Amino acid sequence: MIVPRGFRFATVQAGFRKENRDDLALLVSDVPAVAAGTFTQNRFPAAPVLVARSMLEARPFARAVVINSGQANACTGDEGIANCRETLRLVAAATGLEPEDILPASTGVIGNQLKMDLWREAAPALGADLGKADPEDFAKAIMTTDAFPKLSERELELPGGTVRLVGMAKGAGMICPNMATMLSVVLCDARIEASDWTRMLKEAVNLTFNRVTVDGDTSTNDTLYGLANGCSGVSVEDEAAMQALSSALVSILGDLAYMLVQDGEGASKVARIHVTGAVSDADAERVARTVGHSQLVKTALYGRDANWGRIVAAVGRSGAEFNPEDVRVSLCGVELFRNGQPTDLDFDTLLEEPLKKRDLPIDIVMGEGKGSYTLLASDLTHDYVNVNADYRS
Amino acid sequence: MIVPRGFRFATVQAGFRKENRDDLALLVSDVPAVAAGTFTQNRFPAAPVLVARSMLEARPFARAVVINSGQANACTGDEGIANCRETLRLVAAATGLEPEDILPASTGVIGNQLKMDLWREAAPALGADLGKADPEDFAKAIMTTDAFPKLSERELELPGGTVRLVGMAKGAGMICPNMATMLSVVLCDARIEASDWTRMLKEAVNLTFNRVTVDGDTSTNDTLYGLANGCSGVSVEDEAAMQALSSALVSILGDLAYMLVQDGEGASKVARIHVTGAVSDADAERVARTVGHSQLVKTALYGRDANWGRIVAAVGRSGAEFNPEDVRVSLCGVELFRNGQPTDLDFDTLLEEPLKKRDLPIDIVMGEGKGSYTLLASDLTHDYVNVNADYRS
Repeated sequence: MIVPRGFRFATVQAGFRKENRDDLALLVSDVPAVAAGTFTQNRFPAAPVLVARSMLEARPFARAVVINSGQANACTGDEGIANCRETLRLVAAATGLEPEDILPASTGVIGNQLKMDLWREAAPALGADLGKADPEDFAKAIMTTDAFPKLSERELELPGGTVRLVGMAKGAGMICPNMATMLSVVLCDARIEASDWTRMLKEAVNLTFNRVTVDGDTSTNDTLYGLANGCSGVSVEDEAAMQALSSALVSILGDLAYMLVQDGEGASKVARIHVTGAVSDADAERVARTVGHSQLVKTALYGRDANWGRIVAAVGRSGAEFNPEDVRVSLCGVELFRNGQPTDLDFDTLLEEPLKKRDLPIDIVMGEGKGSYTLLASDLTHDYVNVNADYRS
Repeated sequence: MIVPRGFRFATVQAGFRKENRDDLALLVSDVPAVAAGTFTQNRFPAAPVLVARSMLEARPFARAVVINSGQANACTGDEGIANCRETLRLVAAATGLEPEDILPASTGVIGNQLKMDLWREAAPALGADLGKADPEDFAKAIMTTDAFPKLSERELELPGGTVRLVGMAKGAGMICPNMATMLSVVLCDARIEASDWTRMLKEAVNLTFNRVTVDGDTSTNDTLYGLANGCSGVSVEDEAAMQALSSALVSILGDLAYMLVQDGEGASKVARIHVTGAVSDADAERVARTVGHSQLVKTALYGRDANWGRIVAAVGRSGAEFNPEDVRVSLCGVELFRNGQPTDLDFDTLLEEPLKKRDLPIDIVMGEGKGSYTLLASDLTHDYVNVNADYRS
């Protein structure tokens, strides 16, 4: 496992929600790291989102990130903010850090106040166990309805030496990130200017996490942190190094975004909806999202049904500008619709095998325009209903 | 059963899709009726929508409506249009009407050409059997995945005498009507000006069918026809009679719209999402639709789970303008969220019984604005996935 230099990890079982699993995770950088964050655009941001946003506005540096699962601390008012700040004091006391060095994030059920007694019991162990865990333990401790931990890592050979990156994420439901993801942390040991790191991270999020959907719902807690602590001794300053690091970031976040959809609640398929030829990128996005959010398309993919009419109907209600005669739709490389009518291919036979696979490309050509967009979307299954009809109760 | 004067009905089994049920329905007015229609806003309108729209633009009168289930004749190109016109000639030959007197509609699977051989075999019986069926037979013959036929009727005592109305509708999936419904026909035996009838019908559709959602998908075939043939001998001209007829129309279409949601594919609940205090009606609609389309809200209602956090999260991502502190959310009359945090009610206990009922009011107060909107939405269930993962195949 690739672990960027100068980061240590700890996870403990605080008992916030489920038995027999760690649900509180801390990572600490040995030195102050350049820190950037992207957060949910939901108008009801959770308490840790509000607290962290103001911390990063004050200064783009951090020493640590603490994340709990089991409780979202969202829609919890002033008491939720006060509790969040108190958890940072508890972690500071356990680690010798200052509260303003520690970025918070929470995930779980919306609307309950944090169980502060459990936090008080658990916090000291976070300090005592620091260094005993690794990024995979961290990724496991922040899971909620996730079926597997989500990690991605890269090593980058730059003229000055080796730079290491690792990204961790959680999220399986309420996934339709908007300028942020569910919870994710990406760590890097390069030395880099805060402004460069922040810009690079935002671009990478836009190209990856903001282009996936499970259920069309944007969480109140979406947060992505990126920390670069310089402990590799390698500086990223010139254009070539910047480009290499930026590509590695897009690649890591792309891996994690794919895993979010793959592990979408109940999901059995990952549709890669690729829209081209639209009047604008915005129109292409509109089409991709309408198709990717359509319950009828999602259930047809689950049912391995080449029911392309549902895709065309979704394109038709997307609100995008286009000439219906120009639209072409392909599923798994087989063209199904062109010139306003079905092609004469025997698509049921042609698609029988491809539709059994996990990855299903849907290619939609809207016309001659320059607009394009790609969205990853999960299907809608019996298990999705199982998971969500009794997640809380 | 209330049957407006001067209308006759016929249904036959053409064998378009399923065994042992009628799937072709005709209604004929003894005299030319004032006719109005509202149609899907989907950019891929079905062939019968294109044909009927041009007929009603040419003249607001009709003698008959013919509807088939089992085949949507949507996304079928020029051949689909030609087939649609040919079906009108077949029905005209069987009934002695002119093709341009007959309004067409189709529902079923998108993308297949009509089975013209079956149409040719079945059409003569439509003429021979005219008068042997009633509105309920008609409503049954146009069903697809519907669990029950949808009818509503009213008698109206006006100064000039009695006016009778009956409405029939089908639709259980791809239900998020936009300026039209799935398929519906409302018949009336009043004598009324075409312009008054058209306006009245459009207003009623806006207040009813356009405010329901099952799955957020807008069909390619949505069509509502209203025919008024004057056979009661009662004229509707003055303000009071106009008002009475208009109210009766809203009432009938409201009944049918409710039934669409009640019979939404797999649905077990009807949520009445009532948004008030918004900055504008458009913002209120945005909130209502975001909540009503949220898969997480829909599965929670199915699971009888008072998981109000999902409602608040949907409000937060709706794009509406509001102050989060002002928002109040009630479920089945129990206030759950106020001042940015949960109320201190023991809502799990309070809601245990109400959540077992079919009708679930969700009341959302956004602030002090004048904007409001009401949307009926179904829940998302195992049966929804059953129905849609193998509707076609």
